[in-house]
Amino acid sequence: MNDMKRTAADDLLDVLASWGVSKVFSCPGSTEAAILDALMDRDDMELFLTTHESAAVSIADGYSRATGAPSVVYLHANGGLTNGLANLAAAQLAYSPVVVLNGLKPRSIQSRAGFTTARRMRDFVHQYVKDDWQCLSSEAIAEDVNRAFRTAMIEPTGPVWVGLSQDLLESPSSAPAPGADGFTFDSRTVPSASAIRAAADVIAQSRHPVIVAGSEVARSGAIDDVIRLSETLRVPVLHEDRRALERPGFPTDHPNFRGQYEPAHPLVQGADLLVFLGARLFNEFEPPTSPQLPAGVKIIHSHTDARQIALIHGVDVGLVGDQGLIAQELLAALSERPPQHEFVLPEREADPAPRASTTDGGALKALDVVDTITDALRGAVIVGDATTAGGVLQTRAHQHSGNDYFVSSSGSLGWGMGAALGIKMGLPQRRVAAILGDGVFQFGIPALWSAARQNIPVTYVVINNQRYAAVGAALQRYHGKAAERQVYPGTDIAGVNIAEVSSAFGVPGQRVDTLEDLRSAIDAADGVEHPVLIEVMTDTEQLRP
Amino acid sequence: MNDMKRTAADDLLDVLASWGVSKVFSCPGSTEAAILDALMDRDDMELFLTTHESAAVSIADGYSRATGAPSVVYLHANGGLTNGLANLAAAQLAYSPVVVLNGLKPRSIQSRAGFTTARRMRDFVHQYVKDDWQCLSSEAIAEDVNRAFRTAMIEPTGPVWVGLSQDLLESPSSAPAPGADGFTFDSRTVPSASAIRAAADVIAQSRHPVIVAGSEVARSGAIDDVIRLSETLRVPVLHEDRRALERPGFPTDHPNFRGQYEPAHPLVQGADLLVFLGARLFNEFEPPTSPQLPAGVKIIHSHTDARQIALIHGVDVGLVGDQGLIAQELLAALSERPPQHEFVLPEREADPAPRASTTDGGALKALDVVDTITDALRGAVIVGDATTAGGVLQTRAHQHSGNDYFVSSSGSLGWGMGAALGIKMGLPQRRVAAILGDGVFQFGIPALWSAARQNIPVTYVVINNQRYAAVGAALQRYHGKAAERQVYPGTDIAGVNIAEVSSAFGVPGQRVDTLEDLRSAIDAADGVEHPVLIEVMTDTEQLRP
Ligand SMILES: Cc1ncc(C[n+]2csc(CCOP(=O)(O)OP(=O)(O)O)c2C)c(N)n1
Ligand SMILES: Cc1ncc(C[n+]2csc(CCOP(=O)(O)OP(=O)(O)O)c2C)c(N)n1
Repeated sequence: MNDMKRTAADDLLDVLASWGVSKVFSCPGSTEAAILDALMDRDDMELFLTTHESAAVSIADGYSRATGAPSVVYLHANGGLTNGLANLAAAQLAYSPVVVLNGLKPRSIQSRAGFTTARRMRDFVHQYVKDDWQCLSSEAIAEDVNRAFRTAMIEPTGPVWVGLSQDLLESPSSAPAPGADGFTFDSRTVPSASAIRAAADVIAQSRHPVIVAGSEVARSGAIDDVIRLSETLRVPVLHEDRRALERPGFPTDHPNFRGQYEPAHPLVQGADLLVFLGARLFNEFEPPTSPQLPAGVKIIHSHTDARQIALIHGVDVGLVGDQGLIAQELLAALSERPPQHEFVLPEREADPAPRASTTDGGALKALDVVDTITDALRGAVIVGDATTAGGVLQTRAHQHSGNDYFVSSSGSLGWGMGAALGIKMGLPQRRVAAILGDGVFQFGIPALWSAARQNIPVTYVVINNQRYAAVGAALQRYHGKAAERQVYPGTDIAGVNIAEVSSAFGVPGQRVDTLEDLRSAIDAADGVEHPVLIEVMTDTEQLRP
Repeated sequence: MNDMKRTAADDLLDVLASWGVSKVFSCPGSTEAAILDALMDRDDMELFLTTHESAAVSIADGYSRATGAPSVVYLHANGGLTNGLANLAAAQLAYSPVVVLNGLKPRSIQSRAGFTTARRMRDFVHQYVKDDWQCLSSEAIAEDVNRAFRTAMIEPTGPVWVGLSQDLLESPSSAPAPGADGFTFDSRTVPSASAIRAAADVIAQSRHPVIVAGSEVARSGAIDDVIRLSETLRVPVLHEDRRALERPGFPTDHPNFRGQYEPAHPLVQGADLLVFLGARLFNEFEPPTSPQLPAGVKIIHSHTDARQIALIHGVDVGLVGDQGLIAQELLAALSERPPQHEFVLPEREADPAPRASTTDGGALKALDVVDTITDALRGAVIVGDATTAGGVLQTRAHQHSGNDYFVSSSGSLGWGMGAALGIKMGLPQRRVAAILGDGVFQFGIPALWSAARQNIPVTYVVINNQRYAAVGAALQRYHGKAAERQVYPGTDIAGVNIAEVSSAFGVPGQRVDTLEDLRSAIDAADGVEHPVLIEVMTDTEQLRP
């Protein structure tokens, strides 16, 4: 087919290069031959091989989250796309600019519903991307892919899908290809002056305002602006609700930090104004049985993505735009129209005394395990995918910057194994550790292969309670036969030696069952130049940490 | 929520029971609490726990293929559904009556796009099922699920999806529930008498007819009818094209069997009539570069699924209906209107002499490995998911009945690991072995957990060439830089000790690297009452067996 001539695949790689892409994450198949071939002589770009699409997508997502830069996944046919969807949902929720290229069979086979063809590929992916387009001609490939990057990077950023038929990709080049130049622009916006004025007025008239800093504050690099707003006004700050949080919007070690948003939080209860900055209201796990917002409280809600504002609850002022710019504009407006009552920063409760983390001979409790982990990993980037232990992890993990803690709000198991690899590549100077459930582990195993092959030095810690504790907890809440008998069907997943699985993949694994051994294992893994996995055995009976 | 009262979940289980369902394949989550609870006191039905939806779906599919009976998968939310899609595509291609129930968050959260919610779930699944419906009220659950079974079982059978919102499932029972009674009926059809007459005329006028028996012959239990047709007319029989084959439509040890359909097959070249019974024309891997049908040949094509007929190539007569009934009707019509020329059954070439299967010291060749495997497993049911070794496996595996050999034509890796478990449960008296690629293995690992937990005695044989050889072969065909330099990027997946991974999951694994050890390992696994895995190391350079 290709006798050393330039192809549309070469054009496509030029587009990728112009956007600074250096790695193409893929588990390729025959439809990707042209791309694999075109990658061979590039010194600016390499294939990053994965052995499952769930890994490819989560690694790319992690990389984009950590860097803010676009990443590229190349998926194979229909099976490859659908295997990647669960983690693509996670990327979407985190506004991660992952460009998904999808190799498709030659066009003539598509209409014939041939091998590995689904005739409406876009239906699969439509809900999880900002745009989906299947290229119609080889001349259009570079332009279409370039536009995909542009779309992924326009605020609010997010995943985009492009379908690339094999015959088009293997066609002769039709350079010159467009590139990032001219297609990268500052797409941040600010709300109208009157909206800002309205927000400043509401703040100026309030007595007990509370800021709730969401993940978008971190993603848009606006933490310093929010600190300034909070310090100038002397207003306390909470993190957004735990189900919606993707990363910390405020330093947990800042004197104005007061914990995580919960309707029952005393500051929320006492507030007359809640200023939600870049937060989601809310990512509901179940229909709430009590109000999520105090009665009569005023609401200001800013978000880059207008679709998040007044989605469930009405607002007094909605502010669409960039979190950093909005914080700056609010501050400017408030200096002209200062608050009518001086705000008093409430006392901060003393941090709880460090808990004694020693093993008392019985089965390890998840709470103690999380304490030990967060203590040992102070200073590291934590990637959380720990299910029932996730809530405690979130409150205990040290989060000084917006990059210190990453989770997914998608609720689909397995994201963290691959994401940690992408995050480590995006933050090479930092130590990165992923904290996982044993159920989660089984969904992410193929990521181990890429960790070993690419020698990415992350520390995996698997909290092995040999259970789907979250499912047991749901049965408890259901108050049926299971709860009455305290027998929880569908939750016992014992039987896997996770450390051995890991070692068999080339990621040295170690099983520990005391807090002391856990601590030493985490310490020993520090600075080691390859990935390691620590499996910590915990109480199998406990359904909540 | 449920204080020991009967719920819609109980109604639903009654429907399942009426259809003979004894196992619910699931990797459940909180949306499935009511079903888990309702299952607790049933003695006619049990939860079959899996640790990944890809396993749940392929196990159910395997069970339906082996038994012809409907099977049930219960998937969790959006992530569970999308994780199951790749193997659902396989079920669809095999006309496997898998009923997919999908737990969804309570309705109020769905409209709010809450946790684990995609607002258009049906878009994901629509292309892979006969029908998709999201229940609108608790009273409708039993009826909707009953209708799903009916739809799945009407010819042509196939997967059906029903979305079940958590709040509806947890609602009080609204019995009496409908059940299979009255909803199970003989839905087989026969073509019109004139279509049968037209086909008989074409056959009667031909000189060199060839029958091509497809997977539908096996699925509809029509092999004996096709044998009778072939014997009475003295017409040779081929299996359908290898890419389309899901199971053998004719015994390979029958004197009239002449191999597999290929355009270049001498009998195809010499034919003036091809009678495709229950075959697909064709599941094209790439746009054909030479004709798939000889010029001027006449075509009769029968299929249960009208959509398969004249999809790509025009036919002289199309026959929509049941394969067994069609073979009978053709025979009856031909006894009234006998062939004008006596057909002469061409000589059958002698079977190739058994190849010497000994290790000569070098790396094992896939061909020898397949020879050893098929020889050692004579009499066993073979489940093939072996990628580049799959073609040879298909021609060498002994296939006396329609249940002796199962593959997937979906082209998505990983189906075989779970399917083998379902097939073993469906055919408990038979030895079942799955022959897998090492790339395939990484897509199917969680099936090992269910194999161990449920102690399903299958023999897994992984042909470990440490390669994506199929991708290398595609690069060769592409004739680019990779082919010129004989360096194949994106194909080296070495580094996993598959036998150790298996053992760590509780499925004893063994690595072998001689044919003698392979043979002894397969023999030793015979009759063993638990699953085992044999990893055979082969040549890493070879891209085709
Ligand atoms: C893809 C997918 N399948 C199924 C579920 C349902 N589910 C929710 S939590 C959970 C258990 C997770 O187990 P583990 O990681 O061990 O954490 P634990 O619950 O024990 O804390 C399951 C199976 C899910 N969330 N995502
Ligand atoms: C879900 C999915 N992802 C990717 C591919 C692309 N693909 C086709 S064949 C193949 C290699 C399979 O490797 P293995 O099972 O070891 O068999 P081999 O090619 O070595 O014979 C790959 C990755 C696919 N078919 N399905």
